[in-house]
Amino acid sequence: VERSFEIDIDRLKEVVFSRDVRVVGLQLPEGLKRRGPEIAGILERECGVRVLISGNPCFGACDVDTRLLGRVDLLFHLGHSGRDTHRIVFVETPARVEVERVLEKALSLLESERIGLFTTVQHVHSLRDARDFLEGRGKKCVIGKGDGRIKYPGQVLGCNYSAIRGLDCEELLYLGGGSFHPVGASLATYKRVVAADPFTLKVEEINPELVVRRRYAQLSRARDAENWGIAVSTKPGQFREELALEIKRKIEKWGRKAFLAHMDLISPDSLLNLGGEAWVSTACPRIALDDSSSFQVPVITPPELDVLIEGKPWKMDEIWG
Amino acid sequence: VERSFEIDIDRLKEVVFSRDVRVVGLQLPEGLKRRGPEIAGILERECGVRVLISGNPCFGACDVDTRLLGRVDLLFHLGHSGRDTHRIVFVETPARVEVERVLEKALSLLESERIGLFTTVQHVHSLRDARDFLEGRGKKCVIGKGDGRIKYPGQVLGCNYSAIRGLDCEELLYLGGGSFHPVGASLATYKRVVAADPFTLKVEEINPELVVRRRYAQLSRARDAENWGIAVSTKPGQFREELALEIKRKIEKWGRKAFLAHMDLISPDSLLNLGGEAWVSTACPRIALDDSSSFQVPVITPPELDVLIEGKPWKMDEIWG
Repeated sequence: VERSFEIDIDRLKEVVFSRDVRVVGLQLPEGLKRRGPEIAGILERECGVRVLISGNPCFGACDVDTRLLGRVDLLFHLGHSGRDTHRIVFVETPARVEVERVLEKALSLLESERIGLFTTVQHVHSLRDARDFLEGRGKKCVIGKGDGRIKYPGQVLGCNYSAIRGLDCEELLYLGGGSFHPVGASLATYKRVVAADPFTLKVEEINPELVVRRRYAQLSRARDAENWGIAVSTKPGQFREELALEIKRKIEKWGRKAFLAHMDLISPDSLLNLGGEAWVSTACPRIALDDSSSFQVPVITPPELDVLIEGKPWKMDEIWG
Repeated sequence: VERSFEIDIDRLKEVVFSRDVRVVGLQLPEGLKRRGPEIAGILERECGVRVLISGNPCFGACDVDTRLLGRVDLLFHLGHSGRDTHRIVFVETPARVEVERVLEKALSLLESERIGLFTTVQHVHSLRDARDFLEGRGKKCVIGKGDGRIKYPGQVLGCNYSAIRGLDCEELLYLGGGSFHPVGASLATYKRVVAADPFTLKVEEINPELVVRRRYAQLSRARDAENWGIAVSTKPGQFREELALEIKRKIEKWGRKAFLAHMDLISPDSLLNLGGEAWVSTACPRIALDDSSSFQVPVITPPELDVLIEGKPWKMDEIWG
């Protein structure tokens, strides 16, 4: 199945025409970047504006290109859901794909009657179809609402699983691609998670054990570090300097040294070059959880630091903080 | 020989004490980043300020971390020479190393009588010693002044070889590490270049042929591209949006398509994901020249685009633009 996402060009054009703008910015997630030049060409030809595309990596609505924003009258941020501001317009890009076939396959992996459904913004419009289909096959489906940061029922973000935490169900079904979100869901809820990708038609049960083992390894490597780095991301939705300062005081009270490092992207090279023996990342929690194998130094999350300092038990649903 | 660079901590402290600052930023090039936490600790303890270190990669005075600058009262930018502003203080970090031994070795590679000396800001204070030593051995040494962007006689930057262009000498001697600057010098002057590294004591004659062959390969791959990306770096000293717009008009007049992409770091992934068949980089000219083997698409400099469009001859001393 071709990986196809709907980009509502007419809506982009309407927004441009309805405002007095001359320079328009365009920010797309990695999987959609390739569509950027084509969209830019259409807006330039048909709306008479100049378009600047963001070439920086983009991983979420937390990751608005503020530098590009400073160069344009209006910034379109595609592929993520967010709250529009005066000059930023978030444009969702729903997946164009049927879900029945992959759900048919997923049925054979589902063990319980009561299924919690969840997905990302790309597939959120398909959750009702999914529920109807599964209920037609004898399942009972629940879809959680999530907290104030979640726009759609059943939607999760890399840093927010509120739509499935405490949901009244026996297991969870994820509609979408990749293992990033279903692993997150598994960690956040302790529940069995089945993932079903409507594009590849792959279905699988998620096993969070590898991630859990890696977390223990990171904590055990970090335990004796004398010199700690605290990483602050300057991405607007990930910037938590106050928390970082609090963590610095905590580490110093613990009798170790600590320094603050501000950076855009938290990358393995950046942490390695600065020479901290262990790091606390105050940025996207998924950096520590998902990228740990690419970092040469241990990187832990703020709640995991409390595990080390206060000897609290490590709990996989509390590592986000 | 240990790679040792002098960081004048007393000067940093004096600057901090002489101003009413509470939060200080610290930006270091990759090779000095590891000293960051130690310097931060000293300033915090002895001056009572809070220090934030920049974790972003840093390659020159053109690469001031403006986002960190927005969070601090004063930014120390270490390791490069630059013009201080109200809130940015450039702090050079001279290499602590003798030059006689490596010059003794270099003598055997020098073929001519009249030698042009050049180096980077780290070794610029040693050029007089080098001249005296070589003149004691029967050579005649010349050291060029450079244009307005060059602070010290004999100093070169990755984008500026004005101190050696047109210098009255038969060959050039580079004092310092790596092949980046001597290759640049060779391309910029067509002269024979010998490089001598006082730390490793390695001496060698530079052969620019590999770079030249790669440039021809890039141009030949770019020639038929229909869809061009034009990369604009948002680093303050590399930002050339007007030039990029001019290049866009030029490419469109040539009958091809073009789009503008703004990014911090021009990285292989960024260019690949955006899908241009060929790219013109308006950022640091060294990105196209030095990193071409890591890019999967051809990346050329603005003067090289003129070679393609206007059929001008390619000249290796004119690729900087």
